[in-house]
Amino acid sequence: MNKNYYAVLMAGGVGSRFWPISTSENPKQFHDMLGTGDTLIQKTFQRLNKFVPTENILILTNERYNDLVLEQLPMVTEEQVVLEPAMRNTAPCILYAALKIQKMNPNGVMIVAPSDHWIEDEDAFAKDVTTCFEKCEKEEVLCTLGIKPSFPNTGFGYIEFEKTGKSELKKVAQFREKPDYATAKEFLAQGNFLWNAGIFMWSVKTIVNAFKNYQKEQYNLFESGTSCYNTGDERAFIKENYPKAENISIDYAILEQSKSIFVLPATFDWNDLGTWGSLYNKLDKDATENAIVDARVLAQDANGNMIRAHNKKIVVVDGLSDYIIVDKEDVLLIYPKEKEQDIKKVLNTVKDTFGNEFA
Amino acid sequence: MNKNYYAVLMAGGVGSRFWPISTSENPKQFHDMLGTGDTLIQKTFQRLNKFVPTENILILTNERYNDLVLEQLPMVTEEQVVLEPAMRNTAPCILYAALKIQKMNPNGVMIVAPSDHWIEDEDAFAKDVTTCFEKCEKEEVLCTLGIKPSFPNTGFGYIEFEKTGKSELKKVAQFREKPDYATAKEFLAQGNFLWNAGIFMWSVKTIVNAFKNYQKEQYNLFESGTSCYNTGDERAFIKENYPKAENISIDYAILEQSKSIFVLPATFDWNDLGTWGSLYNKLDKDATENAIVDARVLAQDANGNMIRAHNKKIVVVDGLSDYIIVDKEDVLLIYPKEKEQDIKKVLNTVKDTFGNEFA
Repeated sequence: MNKNYYAVLMAGGVGSRFWPISTSENPKQFHDMLGTGDTLIQKTFQRLNKFVPTENILILTNERYNDLVLEQLPMVTEEQVVLEPAMRNTAPCILYAALKIQKMNPNGVMIVAPSDHWIEDEDAFAKDVTTCFEKCEKEEVLCTLGIKPSFPNTGFGYIEFEKTGKSELKKVAQFREKPDYATAKEFLAQGNFLWNAGIFMWSVKTIVNAFKNYQKEQYNLFESGTSCYNTGDERAFIKENYPKAENISIDYAILEQSKSIFVLPATFDWNDLGTWGSLYNKLDKDATENAIVDARVLAQDANGNMIRAHNKKIVVVDGLSDYIIVDKEDVLLIYPKEKEQDIKKVLNTVKDTFGNEFA
Repeated sequence: MNKNYYAVLMAGGVGSRFWPISTSENPKQFHDMLGTGDTLIQKTFQRLNKFVPTENILILTNERYNDLVLEQLPMVTEEQVVLEPAMRNTAPCILYAALKIQKMNPNGVMIVAPSDHWIEDEDAFAKDVTTCFEKCEKEEVLCTLGIKPSFPNTGFGYIEFEKTGKSELKKVAQFREKPDYATAKEFLAQGNFLWNAGIFMWSVKTIVNAFKNYQKEQYNLFESGTSCYNTGDERAFIKENYPKAENISIDYAILEQSKSIFVLPATFDWNDLGTWGSLYNKLDKDATENAIVDARVLAQDANGNMIRAHNKKIVVVDGLSDYIIVDKEDVLLIYPKEKEQDIKKVLNTVKDTFGNEFA
């Protein structure tokens, strides 16, 4: 395995549309959402670990998830878990991680990837990332993987690439925010638009330089801690300085500013597992077209349901279709799949009505 | 309290239409079905204990429920729990209990009552039963309480009484089996039909004589144990002889034979709590017309549901009406109220598919 390859797993999010399984106490990435025996972060780690050495994988997360990470990824040392003392969006934590890696290995190239997505074809994923890594090692460019859109999804940002050029890797013309439906349809018709999956690759040198150019203040803030990184002084430095960082996304801070970004259309199937419905779509269905995780189901006149329980609980459901049925110890959710985007609102109502302990 | 008054609570049934709460391990009468803090058998005991001395209340049940009875009715001694070593319908156990009571007190009058029905007005119940007890003390008659039918229910047996006679207590003309709908409507039109609630009163002398007259064999079988009853030898006698008894109901064995049966039209509201739907009808509803037991519910576009959980579990339900939603640790049931009679079938399918442990 190439010792210059590094990975940074983003594992600080909550995934509130997966409530009641995903909670701020124990978010989606730490659950076995697919019923495979592995949690999403375990699957993501394994996928990266095929071409990135174990000790070169950092996990970026909140302090409150430190124990969950160490428990679920026992091969990882405490030093590999990079804790954000405050929520400051993606730019600060990526710069911080890049500076840590740069101090270990100035020749490092790194991938930044979400810890909670579904990618089945691990070989295709490894090949695509390696293709980008090789470009990043040779040139001062930022790379991203774009997903070929299968329908005019209005829930994702899009990446527009230049149609000219014969290389696999396309020059990015523009990042586009979540479009309305008409715009999304137009994007698909044009053929040079990809979904932004939030997977980025670059050399540490390139990304640190990009911050130096486009986010001088943030660069100065984190660069001043270089002597502390990967030492006993790091914690104190970060605790004091991290909260001072501007709350800004990597997209806005760097990607929309930079002129040399390339996108590789992914050759693998991808799903962001953003909602119970997208999970339903990815799971194998039983004979009655119900997707079942950790339950034993008797379904009559009931199909198209996403059913998740625990301890192989018996679930008898009759006359109910296209529902999300999620049972955990202290919460039961019975909710129409078509309203899945409203689960965030439900969660807020639950908080207001019954308190935070169930959220 | 009248020392001659005795009660026999029938607590051996399972109530399988209340699955998954009611199971053969822990049937309906041992659950707090109404969410009042008391189980049904506790409520029934308290209702009778207003006019029957504590030590005069016997509980007829299966051996497997002995511990449940003693746990839920701590005021009762082990001797008051009369265990059936085999399922032989109601006649054998009633005769057995009557002989035990007769040996204690030849002047005893007794009520036989189900342990799992709903009767709110305890004073009216006490008054009705006392009226019957007084007749039973004076005359060699069998008495029953009949419920004024509120609709042509095809799920109950009916008691037809003679229209002549001005006394409160009406002479029974005939017991009628569960009718079809047209017949039930006709019964109601005739005005002299009542629902059979399975509540019977008689003196021990009268009922023992009735067995002697109409069920000679059964009488001989149980009478031969008289010297053992209420002594250390009782258990062995019953263990050996009870299984030899004919499997027959008290209705068929005695009531349909006897010529001197009287019925008192009950002055209290009654519900047999036979199904989740009848429980729904009896419970107070929240603002959205959902009946809720041991759950905290957020309902949207959801009404007319019978929702039961445990430990005040949070239940979020959207777009679902007139359903039975029952959640227990290892089983979740989501079932249309209108199909409640099929829950017995569901239970059988569950047994066949997943084994007996959930039934």
